[in-house]
Amino acid sequence: MRRSFWAWGWEERLPSAEALRSAGDQLSALFGRPPEQARPLPRLEVAIAGLPRSGAAPPGSIAAFCDASPEARVRHAYGRAWPDLVRGFGCDFSAAPDFVCTPGSEEEVARALEACAVRGIAVTPYGGGTSVVGGVEGGGRGRPACALDLARLSGVLELDPVSRAARIQAGSLGPDLEAALQPHGLTLRHFPQSFEFSTLGGWIATRAGGHFATLQTRIDDAVESVRMITPAGAWASRRFPSSGAGPNPDRLALGSEGILGVITEAWVRLHPVPRYRASATVAFADFLGGARACRAIAQSGLYPANCRLIDAAEAMLNGVGGGTGEALLLLAFESADHPLDPWMTRALQIGLDAGGTCPSGATYRDSGERAGGGASAKWREAFFAAPYLQSGFVSLGILADTFETACIWDRFEALHAAVGASVTDALRRICGAGIVTCRITHLYPDGAAPYFTMVAPVRAGAELEQWREIKAAASEAVAAAGGTITHHHAVGRTHRPWYGRERPEPFAAALRAVKREIDPAGILNPGVLL
Amino acid sequence: MRRSFWAWGWEERLPSAEALRSAGDQLSALFGRPPEQARPLPRLEVAIAGLPRSGAAPPGSIAAFCDASPEARVRHAYGRAWPDLVRGFGCDFSAAPDFVCTPGSEEEVARALEACAVRGIAVTPYGGGTSVVGGVEGGGRGRPACALDLARLSGVLELDPVSRAARIQAGSLGPDLEAALQPHGLTLRHFPQSFEFSTLGGWIATRAGGHFATLQTRIDDAVESVRMITPAGAWASRRFPSSGAGPNPDRLALGSEGILGVITEAWVRLHPVPRYRASATVAFADFLGGARACRAIAQSGLYPANCRLIDAAEAMLNGVGGGTGEALLLLAFESADHPLDPWMTRALQIGLDAGGTCPSGATYRDSGERAGGGASAKWREAFFAAPYLQSGFVSLGILADTFETACIWDRFEALHAAVGASVTDALRRICGAGIVTCRITHLYPDGAAPYFTMVAPVRAGAELEQWREIKAAASEAVAAAGGTITHHHAVGRTHRPWYGRERPEPFAAALRAVKREIDPAGILNPGVLL
Repeated sequence: MRRSFWAWGWEERLPSAEALRSAGDQLSALFGRPPEQARPLPRLEVAIAGLPRSGAAPPGSIAAFCDASPEARVRHAYGRAWPDLVRGFGCDFSAAPDFVCTPGSEEEVARALEACAVRGIAVTPYGGGTSVVGGVEGGGRGRPACALDLARLSGVLELDPVSRAARIQAGSLGPDLEAALQPHGLTLRHFPQSFEFSTLGGWIATRAGGHFATLQTRIDDAVESVRMITPAGAWASRRFPSSGAGPNPDRLALGSEGILGVITEAWVRLHPVPRYRASATVAFADFLGGARACRAIAQSGLYPANCRLIDAAEAMLNGVGGGTGEALLLLAFESADHPLDPWMTRALQIGLDAGGTCPSGATYRDSGERAGGGASAKWREAFFAAPYLQSGFVSLGILADTFETACIWDRFEALHAAVGASVTDALRRICGAGIVTCRITHLYPDGAAPYFTMVAPVRAGAELEQWREIKAAASEAVAAAGGTITHHHAVGRTHRPWYGRERPEPFAAALRAVKREIDPAGILNPGVLL
Repeated sequence: MRRSFWAWGWEERLPSAEALRSAGDQLSALFGRPPEQARPLPRLEVAIAGLPRSGAAPPGSIAAFCDASPEARVRHAYGRAWPDLVRGFGCDFSAAPDFVCTPGSEEEVARALEACAVRGIAVTPYGGGTSVVGGVEGGGRGRPACALDLARLSGVLELDPVSRAARIQAGSLGPDLEAALQPHGLTLRHFPQSFEFSTLGGWIATRAGGHFATLQTRIDDAVESVRMITPAGAWASRRFPSSGAGPNPDRLALGSEGILGVITEAWVRLHPVPRYRASATVAFADFLGGARACRAIAQSGLYPANCRLIDAAEAMLNGVGGGTGEALLLLAFESADHPLDPWMTRALQIGLDAGGTCPSGATYRDSGERAGGGASAKWREAFFAAPYLQSGFVSLGILADTFETACIWDRFEALHAAVGASVTDALRRICGAGIVTCRITHLYPDGAAPYFTMVAPVRAGAELEQWREIKAAASEAVAAAGGTITHHHAVGRTHRPWYGRERPEPFAAALRAVKREIDPAGILNPGVLL
């Protein structure tokens, strides 16, 4: 299979014309407009023909592992945010880097940083290229730009089965690292929606959210130590399970989004592959009732692996739950150590006490297998298919985008209402129609991370402008309601204005000072975070 | 009751002459030397008489809330590390600050920082004064020095029962904040050994370790947001349950040990007061067998509240376990939500599978009460009495000091052996005799935090020199074996050389850059961390 040069994932997995028409017709009916004819998909030759000339050749000292070919440049131009898809669909690759550098060792990373610093070439570390916040869009800003692709720094280098940790190179894709770990009975169990195409280094640089709904919700807590090559040398922390020696250095690398250095490898904490699984689907007449159950479960000390609440519209759009108009809570526990009946029984009771129903009860497995069928399985399938559908929708003039946040429980209901209303209003105003759905993806004792999906008809040629207006409305609504601008999509270039308002001002000054110290030439991913 | 000016805690709680003699005689027998006569305790008048003159008067703009009296200066000279006790016992208060500033508001904190910056006066934030690493020793370094005492910034300001969080001022002592929270059925459950005399701000600044043996092992994870007054303005993060927006700003305040600003308040995550408790004591023929049980429990996903393994010598010294020569694992679960039988049953089984014995089985309570009696209760009593005994031992010429670390499981057995051997050897070489004991205090899936106690006879007049040599030997042994220089005692001035070797060099440069940016006059706690 071949990666699409403009769309999500594998070219071969993009929805068929038929599937697209069926989904498009359904949405058009919802929007009250006649079905649109799908425009033809873009062609790589056209994209290449329209590509601006490279403004800078790879420096001689690193030319051996650089590629300034138009195809390489096109393929490293964008992440996979909605505006990236729109520009890619329109064969606009004006933000392509001038060349791509693919170092095969830390020494080559260091050499690349040095060569680019001397010439003032911007360097954007590039893992899987799945950023949805403009985090890997380094070119087209009037300054020579290099995409530093970690693809060759991929592999599991060491395994420590006693401490249950592995040393893994930053360019390792999700499936590759799991394939290397699981034969040893171990797993990282970090499954973001981008799992197939994103890398360990990208997860660390962006503090990616993963599989677990509670406790280890993001990659941060899996990181035991990090190696990051910076213009000021190797930033290498030591392997400790925990340390109280000063501010944690890893926590400054986590979320640094490529502005301080190139993460090359990390020791990460692993889990044994689960043997026992328990799952249940609890239905709630209304989303907020489900959210109250989530809060009670989050505060119970039971720590489910999954506890995702999907509102009725999202359930319908994803073909989950049979269109009953109910919100669905997908609840699951897993363990390699013990059967989970007491955990699930109590969590289910909390759900029922909060007004939920669970006619089919819980399912238990002790063979390591997932429970087949049911809402969870359908949800998982829809979850990984969604980005393909989103890409396909571009051809139909349908915007499908998501944003997420986290807020304390005390603000949750108000945020949910205000954001839903503001964004629905913005979609109507800007697009004439549109729907907003919500799910809760991650839970904390003191709050939750709601994840919003918005779908609306857009006008060909005006999509980017319309999207910018909608994105601003959504971000303003989130900030006004006391949510963070991002729980796990990162800041990138898209969230920069709201991030600027959210962080403590002296911390911003501190981060700028760190940047000046570590990257005095200011070459690393300019425009991101700072 | 009155705080001792030189020793741990309340003057009235120092061990009686009789208790001291009994303990001293026991130790002297172990050391093979004749019992020592206790020297008389120091007197405040003598300490005051020997105090160097104050080198700087409080600046006029803050004089109204400053105190340059000898007693105030004596009482803010030191933390409660062993060398602090020795100097205090000897009425040597040469490291006293020139004055003490006790602001009553953030505005007064800011004014104090400004006034001191103008005059180049060093400012050491002072919470409960319980540092065991020289973290609050700001004076006597040839530069005017102010101890900034947070005592007046004490109280629980807001409670959010929905999100289970509270806004608490940094100067709040452990018992005071718990007294304000528990009537609401909530608790911070952060119980370091210093609980009675240490403050929320101090815990945050030093990343203090607390009650829980797993999951929330230190204050870090309890912090929802922080306010820190810096010379560059208020560093105030927002209340989020979690955020992925850039590197976490709170993680730079956590562990900053007063070098970047004065922490004035924080929103912290609370727990419901537990109703269900389960506890058990599992005995192991050898410490390493118990450690293997700890590892299996840490990797089981059961998350006990307590899982402390005490070696045979430590059990004996603390009067726990009846001198059977066995290592004891104190295991406990607690919950406000559910009975704990399945959790305890499985954890106990893991302990037995690893070769432990538990003849009396587990004890369960569902009334919120702790199980009375037993090894746990005796241990707790000994735990909080230990610092008093340590102070008393100074009068007997007995060094009693502790150090701790954390390392990955793969290195645990080797570290335990190497550190024990090195320090035992150092005590024999330097003191002629001595014993080293060990317990495991905190557990992680990938490692553990062992805590060592060393007791040895020292020569009056040579104690500090002997201690320095022993401390260096212990620190070298820890570092050589792959442990961090501190799991939860912080860096302060004592651990600075080993911390310098442990942290990534570019991170050290980054921290220095942050310091220059935030505290350009370099007044905040000089000599700590940097």
